[in-house]
Order: sequence, then C-alpha cells, then structure tokens
Amino acid sequence: MQDAIEFLKQQIRTVPDWPEPGVQFRDITPLLANPRAFRVLIDQFVHRYFDTRPDVIAGLDARGFIIGSVLAYELNVGFVPIRKKGKLPFTTVQETYELEYGSATVEMHTDAVKAGDRVLLIDDLIATGGTMLAGKRLLERLGASVIEGAVIVDLPELGGSAKIREQGLPVFALVDFQGH
Amino acid sequence: MQDAIEFLKQQIRTVPDWPEPGVQFRDITPLLANPRAFRVLIDQFVHRYFDTRPDVIAGLDARGFIIGSVLAYELNVGFVPIRKKGKLPFTTVQETYELEYGSATVEMHTDAVKAGDRVLLIDDLIATGGTMLAGKRLLERLGASVIEGAVIVDLPELGGSAKIREQGLPVFALVDFQGH
Repeated sequence: MQDAIEFLKQQIRTVPDWPEPGVQFRDITPLLANPRAFRVLIDQFVHRYFDTRPDVIAGLDARGFIIGSVLAYELNVGFVPIRKKGKLPFTTVQETYELEYGSATVEMHTDAVKAGDRVLLIDDLIATGGTMLAGKRLLERLGASVIEGAVIVDLPELGGSAKIREQGLPVFALVDFQGH
Repeated sequence: MQDAIEFLKQQIRTVPDWPEPGVQFRDITPLLANPRAFRVLIDQFVHRYFDTRPDVIAGLDARGFIIGSVLAYELNVGFVPIRKKGKLPFTTVQETYELEYGSATVEMHTDAVKAGDRVLLIDDLIATGGTMLAGKRLLERLGASVIEGAVIVDLPELGGSAKIREQGLPVFALVDFQGH
C-alpha cells in the first residue's frame, strides 16, 4: 500500500468557499465513508496511543465523537463528550471562547473525569484552536491532565496548533493543509 | 457477569425535569464513560450485525456518531453522518420533520451512499421517531435501503418506535424505559 498518510490526505475533499467566500473547507466525510480509509485512519491513532494509553478519551462535539469513540473502544477506556452549550443534562462546567464574530461555549459533565485522570482530547480539525483550548481548560478545572490534543487535520497557517502548544498541550495531527 | 442488558440499563442516568418540567431525560454519558460498560454496549451491536453486515452505517447527529462510528470500524464498513442543517459542506439532500414546537431539518451528502446500498441507521434514543424517519427518507431518496434502525434506548410510550415500524423499518433497541 502507498504511504498511509498520503492515502488519507487524498480522501479529504476540499470544498471551496464554504461556509463563506475565501474559505477552503476540508471535508473528511469521503474519508469516513471509505471502509479502508476509515480503518487506516483509526489505526493511525490506535497505534499512536497503544502504549501511552490515556485513562479517558474526550471528544469535541460533533466530529470529534467519530474518531474519539472508536479509539476509546479500541483502547478499552471510557469516552467523554465535550458538547456545545445546552446539550448535557447533568451539572456541568462551561468555558466560553472567542470566535471571529461573537463567542461559543462548550461544556462537560462535572463527573465526566476524576482528578488525576490522563485525558486524550480529540477533534477532527484545528483551525484557530479555540475549541480545543476550551476543552483543555474544562478538563483541567476538574483536575484532569490533558496529555495531547489529536486531530486528523491541522491548518497551521491559522496559528491554532502553535497557540495550543504555547499553552503547554502537545498537538498531534495526521495531515496538514496550507491556507484555510 | 450479570445480564448484559440489565448491567447497561443500570449505567443510564435519569435526570428529572430536563430539558423541561415533566421530562425524565435518559442520560447515556455514564455508560460511555465506564470502559467495561462502553465495551459491552458496543459489542451488543457488533454481535447483532456481524452476519447481516450492512454496506454502510449512517449515524444521526450527534450521539448516533458515538455508536455508529465504532460499529463501522468493527464491521469494516463506511460511516456516514446525517447532520443537522448547515453542517455539511457538499451538495446535500434535506428532510424536515415536525417537533412539538416548530420543526427540524436533517441533511446528508448526495454522494454519501450509492443506490442499492444496505444501510444501518443508528441513534442513541427513539422518542417520537421523527429524526430516524427523516434519516430513512434521506437514505431512500438516494436509492439505498435501510435494513434496521438501532438505538440504545427506546421510550415506547412516546410511540416513536411503533410509528417507525409502521413505516416498514425494523427497530432494534437495547433497553426500554417507561414514561418520557
């Protein structure tokens, strides 16, 4: 088989001018829909975390659920969803972060992790990094430590992954794309 | 081990009066966070579809992604997200359905399935059944056939699963709860 990363990158579709003019949206749905590509994708993460094995996988709403849940199952650890505001029924902690226009809030159940848990944080893509940093703050407020932020796609020119690393969180991305 | 279904049911937390007074919300997050329960949960679905093996797993936004993606990985088939309106960047088909107050729209990429594909539709819970029936219509508009609608929790008193079966779609639920 050709190089796995190059194979995966080829399955990601670029949709121009979505959600607004000038943005090149990196669409992972063809990658998920291809059985071989989906398997190769997940196995990249399984192999990376096989030994360091976190206590918990936290997935960011909603595409982070797709990779995060499979990884939790394969590593035999629990899965915790970090959700957009208003979706979780029990007591929560919340973090708000700035967007280009306005702000967004994510939340997590207060009993989702225990103090001392080593957590792997998963999303599909890092753009400005705001969501992942908010997830990190939520987990740390509950006493957990975040061992890495892992994504399929990084858009390094937007500066998000650099900002996350500056905040002390290692970042792992399978593929990079230029531009945004 | 005790009966697997009873074990799973015990991990589901009931949150009273959420999202509104009189509703008993069935919260699956403790089930997902418990590594053994999460494994037992997924394996119930893996064993059920091991032989009938669908061509595609379609997961309903967003909790349906959590089970659907693991099942797709384990069965070596593709995973397709059916999303709330405005989340998918490529050309889509849309279906709107009625809620108690107002309506909701779900959509799917037009290239997500092929004519003739046998699709398993996954969500976490059936209440009134509107979302799952909208998902069925989307898949059928693209020429796929839906072999079953599978969930963790059915609330049979709300009539959703009966309505879905009346529309010709078999329903599989791991556990039932009385009331709503």
